[in-house]
Amino acid sequence: MGMRERMRGFRELVTVQAAVARLRSSISHRINELEEVDLLSAPGRICGEEVLAPSDSPPFDRSAMDGYAVVAEDTFGASPVNPIELKILGKVEAGMKPFDLPKLERGMAIEISTGAPIPPGASAVVPAEFVKKKNHLIEVYQQVHPHQNISKQGEDFSKGELILKRGELIKPWHIGAVASFGITKLKVLRKPRIALLSTGNELIEADSPREPGLIYNSTKPMLAAMLSSVGAQPIDLGIVRDDIDEIKRKIAEGIRETDGVIVTGGTSVGARDLVPEAISKIGRIEVHGLSIRPGKPTGFAIVDGKPVFMLSGFPVAALIGFQVLVKPAIEQLLECRFDPLPKIRGKLTRRVASPPRIRSFVRVKVFMGRGGEVLIEPLRVTGSGILSTLTRGNGVLVIPEDLEGYEEGEEVEVELFSHLTESDERGRI
Amino acid sequence: MGMRERMRGFRELVTVQAAVARLRSSISHRINELEEVDLLSAPGRICGEEVLAPSDSPPFDRSAMDGYAVVAEDTFGASPVNPIELKILGKVEAGMKPFDLPKLERGMAIEISTGAPIPPGASAVVPAEFVKKKNHLIEVYQQVHPHQNISKQGEDFSKGELILKRGELIKPWHIGAVASFGITKLKVLRKPRIALLSTGNELIEADSPREPGLIYNSTKPMLAAMLSSVGAQPIDLGIVRDDIDEIKRKIAEGIRETDGVIVTGGTSVGARDLVPEAISKIGRIEVHGLSIRPGKPTGFAIVDGKPVFMLSGFPVAALIGFQVLVKPAIEQLLECRFDPLPKIRGKLTRRVASPPRIRSFVRVKVFMGRGGEVLIEPLRVTGSGILSTLTRGNGVLVIPEDLEGYEEGEEVEVELFSHLTESDERGRI
Repeated sequence: MGMRERMRGFRELVTVQAAVARLRSSISHRINELEEVDLLSAPGRICGEEVLAPSDSPPFDRSAMDGYAVVAEDTFGASPVNPIELKILGKVEAGMKPFDLPKLERGMAIEISTGAPIPPGASAVVPAEFVKKKNHLIEVYQQVHPHQNISKQGEDFSKGELILKRGELIKPWHIGAVASFGITKLKVLRKPRIALLSTGNELIEADSPREPGLIYNSTKPMLAAMLSSVGAQPIDLGIVRDDIDEIKRKIAEGIRETDGVIVTGGTSVGARDLVPEAISKIGRIEVHGLSIRPGKPTGFAIVDGKPVFMLSGFPVAALIGFQVLVKPAIEQLLECRFDPLPKIRGKLTRRVASPPRIRSFVRVKVFMGRGGEVLIEPLRVTGSGILSTLTRGNGVLVIPEDLEGYEEGEEVEVELFSHLTESDERGRI
Repeated sequence: MGMRERMRGFRELVTVQAAVARLRSSISHRINELEEVDLLSAPGRICGEEVLAPSDSPPFDRSAMDGYAVVAEDTFGASPVNPIELKILGKVEAGMKPFDLPKLERGMAIEISTGAPIPPGASAVVPAEFVKKKNHLIEVYQQVHPHQNISKQGEDFSKGELILKRGELIKPWHIGAVASFGITKLKVLRKPRIALLSTGNELIEADSPREPGLIYNSTKPMLAAMLSSVGAQPIDLGIVRDDIDEIKRKIAEGIRETDGVIVTGGTSVGARDLVPEAISKIGRIEVHGLSIRPGKPTGFAIVDGKPVFMLSGFPVAALIGFQVLVKPAIEQLLECRFDPLPKIRGKLTRRVASPPRIRSFVRVKVFMGRGGEVLIEPLRVTGSGILSTLTRGNGVLVIPEDLEGYEEGEEVEVELFSHLTESDERGRI
């Protein structure tokens, strides 16, 4: 009997890339229910419908400047030393009806304000700063070409054009775009409901009194906050004791009532490998053991087409498991794409190592050096539970599977999860 | 009389850097009022107090693995070909009280689960996967050093250590950190209240019927969404006609009731330069005319120590004005720092130009080329109102004041405000 069989362990560690591919192909459940929300509540939600422009925007040719509507050709050759005189025919204010406008003829100009409709006959607007008014005349000091300083009807969106597609993460500029048509509500996909189940005999809820030998559950509220940050609604399934039947019953309850379940703890391959055992009674384990550090015991299963995630009970490892598996799964449920994390390049202040064929997530402190250069200092870590590496640091350096580390002074790119610190704040490392 | 005096215009364009410095030094108003919120509502808010660790975390030495607690020295030299035998003394489960634990002696091992307290006498934990159990004995196949696989009391946070400081943007990991002490609420700064006032005779509210010559106000809902995205509360002051007294009255009302006012429109130097005139009756104009494109008429004033922003009525220019002035001002009001925008590097698909001494904000489409390289395509733009450049694009290339552009093929860094698109989605450019 070889060592491989004698020792318990993960038969095969799966790469993140392979795990995410399997995740995307094996989650068959989709969120399709729509909710109608006011524009101000829409940013951060996922658009549930195709929104097409119901008309042209702008709805008519408008002036983009305060100035004078002219026939562009009348200004050709105008310059400070060779001003061209035009007769003032009248004035068009923003808000005037297009059919009330005077008609412009050659040799004439009409005073016009930003946003006002372009009078018939005019082909450009000379900005006020290049004009001098003299009684009923203006002197033009700069030529304009046809269409200059005019916002053409439909130039932003023409009728029928796509403004927002289904699955798009709604941003403030989408709000601006739909508001320009007088649209006040949008149909968005309902929020994904993701259940959180914590396992561990040592865990107590935050509102319980402190007791020796027990610890407060910190991973659950952190994951609830992570779920909220990607627009999902966390559903609390509480803490279960280390009991297979109880774990199985709770996961089944979560799957019935939500779009997916996250189970934390009980996933390492030790004396009591409870969670994978419980899940395998009701579903199919797809991945158990990821080639990442920290977070090796991470994995997922599929129950009724929905994902059940097995994350570490240690908060930092759970957070990394969330980023690499849960976030892509929520994208799959909604058929959407979330924003990338901010990244920054800088120089490593010391060497970092990573085991071969493992993707390592190294917590770092990114700060501005005295010379204005960006420096990246790996934080010294002893365990996968050390939350202070996240509260003291502000970034994560991902070392890919095909590298065994980076050298001191090497330029690397890190994911920045908070603002840069100044060099004088560095003392806290 | 020289041209300079004859033509109206911005006497002096101020750089973004100078404007922000003046903003930071001239806003004396601060937001100090605290609100107590549940942990789940805290992320994205600004911490209003120093949070210190009330005790050690972890509260006792815990096992970081399922395995066997041992005296580390007993395992020295253990290997697959030279296993070391230890006698099993008993079992420690997670959740057991530290004073109930058996005492470990040399030559012995105690089975232990993740999270369980380390029994007295033990100095390390051998993971279960490196152990074989044989009746009352275990064979250890790998040596462990003292402290290995033990989470030491206080190693994450020691009593009195700073977890969260005042002014910090609260993140999910802060929630995890405070939750590990059983803390369930946090004191945060109240949300900044920023008033939005739109000027323009042509503007109508979204719920009004469409009328010829009028346009829906799209800039206001977009800015309201931007304010929400940085944790501020937008207060709607409505639309005012182009009337100095009315504008002045509304701004004064906004300043009394909120922490700052954004006025859009009426700020260009044209026939009716109303907003700066109205503001100068009640406060001090600090900057009017920024060296940016689009958004030259952008500026701000100070009234009662609070900022009044003059932004373009054109949505894209207003959005850039928001990023360069309003966001730093809100940081100043709260004495906090927001997260950076995501950035990405790639190759320009064509040349872009920028006027000298102007910071240009060029909307771009960032996409993956067929070879997997990141390509950046500047979008063709005709006006500063063109929202479709934001809904079609996914990034902004900032050309600094000291450059007049970039060449085709040059590597540049852009601010990414949405996910990357694949090359097959490029057709919409």
